[in-house]
Amino acid sequence: MSDLSRRQLLASAALAGAAAALPHTPSAWAAAPRSGPQQNPGFYRFKVGDFEVTAINDGTWFRKLNDSFVRNAPMADVQNALAAAFLPTDALPVPFTALIVNTGPKLIAFDTGTGGQFGSFAPQSGTYAANLAAAGIDPKNVDDIYISHFHPDHINGLKTKDNERIFPNATVHVPAGEWDFWMDDANMGKASDAAEPTFKNARRIFGDMKDKVDRFNAGKDVEKGVTSIPAPGHTPGHTVYAINSGNQSLLFSADTAFNPWVFVRHPEWEIFVDMNGDQAVTTRKRLFDMAAADRLPTHGYHWPFPGSGYLMRTGTGYELVPVMWQAMP
Amino acid sequence: MSDLSRRQLLASAALAGAAAALPHTPSAWAAAPRSGPQQNPGFYRFKVGDFEVTAINDGTWFRKLNDSFVRNAPMADVQNALAAAFLPTDALPVPFTALIVNTGPKLIAFDTGTGGQFGSFAPQSGTYAANLAAAGIDPKNVDDIYISHFHPDHINGLKTKDNERIFPNATVHVPAGEWDFWMDDANMGKASDAAEPTFKNARRIFGDMKDKVDRFNAGKDVEKGVTSIPAPGHTPGHTVYAINSGNQSLLFSADTAFNPWVFVRHPEWEIFVDMNGDQAVTTRKRLFDMAAADRLPTHGYHWPFPGSGYLMRTGTGYELVPVMWQAMP
Repeated sequence: MSDLSRRQLLASAALAGAAAALPHTPSAWAAAPRSGPQQNPGFYRFKVGDFEVTAINDGTWFRKLNDSFVRNAPMADVQNALAAAFLPTDALPVPFTALIVNTGPKLIAFDTGTGGQFGSFAPQSGTYAANLAAAGIDPKNVDDIYISHFHPDHINGLKTKDNERIFPNATVHVPAGEWDFWMDDANMGKASDAAEPTFKNARRIFGDMKDKVDRFNAGKDVEKGVTSIPAPGHTPGHTVYAINSGNQSLLFSADTAFNPWVFVRHPEWEIFVDMNGDQAVTTRKRLFDMAAADRLPTHGYHWPFPGSGYLMRTGTGYELVPVMWQAMP
Repeated sequence: MSDLSRRQLLASAALAGAAAALPHTPSAWAAAPRSGPQQNPGFYRFKVGDFEVTAINDGTWFRKLNDSFVRNAPMADVQNALAAAFLPTDALPVPFTALIVNTGPKLIAFDTGTGGQFGSFAPQSGTYAANLAAAGIDPKNVDDIYISHFHPDHINGLKTKDNERIFPNATVHVPAGEWDFWMDDANMGKASDAAEPTFKNARRIFGDMKDKVDRFNAGKDVEKGVTSIPAPGHTPGHTVYAINSGNQSLLFSADTAFNPWVFVRHPEWEIFVDMNGDQAVTTRKRLFDMAAADRLPTHGYHWPFPGSGYLMRTGTGYELVPVMWQAMP
């Protein structure tokens, strides 16, 4: 490009100074004439061996940045990390993406989204049900549900806000370590004001199906092709899953790391919701070291949709290399 | 994770040695019970200022690697670059993604895909029409079409294989430099056997609409909000476009660089279809230096769907930072 055309571009583009980033926050959307749906539904289908995996997006929470967001890093460093990923520096995008795995004999859900119950707290969340339908999956057909931990964005999708079950025919499996912590009344009694609603919410979701919930000790095969792996720190019983078919595997890493441009690149940073920060860092490094060494495809619940990629070691942490979208599963 | 559970994972996952990459090449797809469409359609909608942009995927060509694929780098180096991106090392995925921009008053297409005419040469290509329909866009409503260059994967979508126009009401705009080169019979007479079909194909596409094609000199505003920028090297008249609305811009960079993990990271590498390799490298660096300095969102016709990202300078080249998928345009 000649200098002339560059000047022309800059003039016509109103590119005075740095170009603005594409918007990642809600904006008024005027119905455009002569075009169809606003956005493609948020599902993505791929294969792991003979298994069909469908990633189901539940929207995004834009978490305003403040000093306490990362417990052990200055806000300016977090903002630099966001700018390096060409993201806005005033809020962290936290997408939610759960998985449904069709093993052939069984349809298995891994976590369930927010149930559309986050309201004004996260107005761009709650798209799980619509995306599940777009993917052609009826929740009545889900046989089993595996939960990573009891935070509301992972378990609320088990029920409507009126406490009806959304997957009426599924057996719900939860890590025993998670159940034992959150369902213990002594722990709730000691909880901070900030933590108490999570205890109460767990009782709302699980209270009336107590006898039907399967509590398992993480660290073993829980289904043919599904291995549970203890991953404590984020919560006491936080559990991740390896999904295995043929010679392929996928690691459902749940909340091992939030936004990758912050917490994968800086694995030692503790997000304010990591209940035991030291333990979370240890777990993060252990799992990511394994994923990097084995070139193991890995899914993060809060990673950019569709949420899967590969982990690569760098000098100071890891780099997430997202999978390439492909037209065939 | 304990050593025990790691052993269990490895045993149950059949992860002997390195885990296999997720498949990027066609595989037999058995219809899975109780689930819907095979894959989400390949369209993606976002905003640039007040403009609505829709990326339309036309599938992927898997180009078998051989010594001549990169003219000035050993095949082993190219394979290392692919492995670093966790891609198969026997073939390069070359997706095709064109854009449709709704400016309000006008619906404008940038390039048009393969027209589904690549057959066994690229059996996973030709999805443009279906994805356009899924995006709710009727080709009859397209007002203007801007072409980057005359390679068949950019112009064949103007017509069916029976030479019917696919966008019957659109004015077709082409760079004069491109027209002058490919429509010149003397040039065709001198062409190699490999290049001759491209000359003939240009005549098939444009021959019977010669008088209706607008030929413009690149380096000026061509529409309100669209600036053409000469970008020669890949072909003699290769032209890219800046799409500008409000204080936002998007650079439609066409074939300035193919697969980013190869040619963005290694801007000095010349792909075999770069007609003037030196000039292509100069153009690539000039455009990407500008995009990186201005943090300008950039779209690549052969970049991973949806094809947009930001360019960052590295010590040896550039890094593409893909945009984060968002549920709202």
